[in-house]
Amino acid sequence: MAEFELIAMIRERCAAQREVLLGIGDDCALLSLPPGQQLAVSCDTLNADVHFDAAHAAADIGYKAAAVNLSDLAAMGAEPAWCTLSLSMPSADRAWLSGLLDGFLELCAAHRVALVGGDTTRGPLSLCVTAMGWLPHGRALRRDAARVGDDLWVTGSLGDASAALALGEAAGRYLRGRLLRPTPRVDAGRALLRLAHAAIDLSDGLHGDLGHVLRASSAGADLQLGALPASQALIEAFPEREARWNHQLCGGDDYELAFTADPSQRRAVEEALQAVGVLATRIGSLRAEPGLRLMLPEGGSWEPAAGAWQHFGEAT
Amino acid sequence: MAEFELIAMIRERCAAQREVLLGIGDDCALLSLPPGQQLAVSCDTLNADVHFDAAHAAADIGYKAAAVNLSDLAAMGAEPAWCTLSLSMPSADRAWLSGLLDGFLELCAAHRVALVGGDTTRGPLSLCVTAMGWLPHGRALRRDAARVGDDLWVTGSLGDASAALALGEAAGRYLRGRLLRPTPRVDAGRALLRLAHAAIDLSDGLHGDLGHVLRASSAGADLQLGALPASQALIEAFPEREARWNHQLCGGDDYELAFTADPSQRRAVEEALQAVGVLATRIGSLRAEPGLRLMLPEGGSWEPAAGAWQHFGEAT
Repeated sequence: MAEFELIAMIRERCAAQREVLLGIGDDCALLSLPPGQQLAVSCDTLNADVHFDAAHAAADIGYKAAAVNLSDLAAMGAEPAWCTLSLSMPSADRAWLSGLLDGFLELCAAHRVALVGGDTTRGPLSLCVTAMGWLPHGRALRRDAARVGDDLWVTGSLGDASAALALGEAAGRYLRGRLLRPTPRVDAGRALLRLAHAAIDLSDGLHGDLGHVLRASSAGADLQLGALPASQALIEAFPEREARWNHQLCGGDDYELAFTADPSQRRAVEEALQAVGVLATRIGSLRAEPGLRLMLPEGGSWEPAAGAWQHFGEAT
Repeated sequence: MAEFELIAMIRERCAAQREVLLGIGDDCALLSLPPGQQLAVSCDTLNADVHFDAAHAAADIGYKAAAVNLSDLAAMGAEPAWCTLSLSMPSADRAWLSGLLDGFLELCAAHRVALVGGDTTRGPLSLCVTAMGWLPHGRALRRDAARVGDDLWVTGSLGDASAALALGEAAGRYLRGRLLRPTPRVDAGRALLRLAHAAIDLSDGLHGDLGHVLRASSAGADLQLGALPASQALIEAFPEREARWNHQLCGGDDYELAFTADPSQRRAVEEALQAVGVLATRIGSLRAEPGLRLMLPEGGSWEPAAGAWQHFGEAT
């Protein structure tokens, strides 16, 4: 199977879509940004044996590659529109590629995202996705826009993906699904555009990712450990609260959103996220003193066992 | 060296630039497309030991990664504006990364291109670049816009990179420079916006790349082998004309442009490219009958020894 056949196979599955003037098959894709909108761009790579297990179903790998990139758009409150997929494979395996596209395009279609370009190359298994979308000028949910006094919120439940990774084969279907097919909170991000101040997606874990928001916004936060939203499956798998907190705070791959909003917006936030079917939980508040303080339900503070996930954390 | 330090190192070297509302450091970059312009997007991956030799200078690898992506924008006639760089490295090597950025940002700066995002991950050495730019609505130099009767042109000289690859250590400085640091024909592409019909950049070799244009435009071409532009260095390295033609037709990595234009534009094309310091050579013309016919100077036609470069050409 030649490279051009691979590209033809991908192209066949990408029908003409909105605001795509020219899709796959030329030197560039040509796209039309609606007037008055900013372009939002994010890029994430997934490498075999680092970000995913090459033995996983190809469709799950494709789904996740789309999800982690749409999640970055969600965290800005952007509407996803287009993506490119650059795929390196050791050999040209038509069945595997077809499975990968099943998963990748399934999630793209759910968000009306058009695959407009990319390339296929020989090399160690790796997917690099660039996701593009738009949002009204000056409205983005930036990391540096949190304010002292804001409520601190998260969507969904935390720690499920991390628990699934820790449990391996012993993980149940629900936890495993949360690891393999995370849900990017695209609708939630858009619903928060006029309600939240700052937002970030939880790819590396709440503890580390929230740290980025606090440093960028020159603020600190008190986080109530007892308020951290946990799924029933996580509670069953890790009945001991500290083990659970470690997963919820330091486990990556959740792809929920953490965001801050003025306390006057509590009702509006809850209603807006309820309208898009996403649970919102208030887990703390921002203060002027820097740092993140993890508050125990019985009073006093606590520190997790592990630090935030870093790709080169083990290097010097 | 942690991932966040790597990102901080890259970020420090990317000053605020035009139309960048928010650069590296948030979930997405936020960019402002000038009114009336289309967005042009291209994405290319370079893998160690497939697209480049990992033993090459890091600065050369960075330069080439930028060049091959800007070349795709050039082939549409787009003005480059932004790029993302997704970098996989086996370990976090600060000196190597610094060298890579030297080369990458040198070429970006020359074209006022802002590095606005990307990521750094652990994995086999690989660079995935997405380049973005803009051009006036409906003006792009598309592959499917060639017309029967058009002149066929190429910029610069052909076959130098392929010759350098074939010669290895024996290649002279000039040929080696053409392989390691190709010049994307950005200014030429923009100068051709209102003059040319179709264009493509020669990444896989003239024979194969021109085939894409001809098929997309439902046309054929007569190409005059005697007109193919050759550098002095290529002629000296390969005095035998058929060996030279093989490099010029089937060698990849030239990153020159092939384009078609109406014969009434001959003078205008020459002047426009002269104004940006790029040699333009007329090498043939388009006809209705499909296929590419390679014409010998003495009459009759010829076929090259090798086919176009395909990344999975050896697979089945």
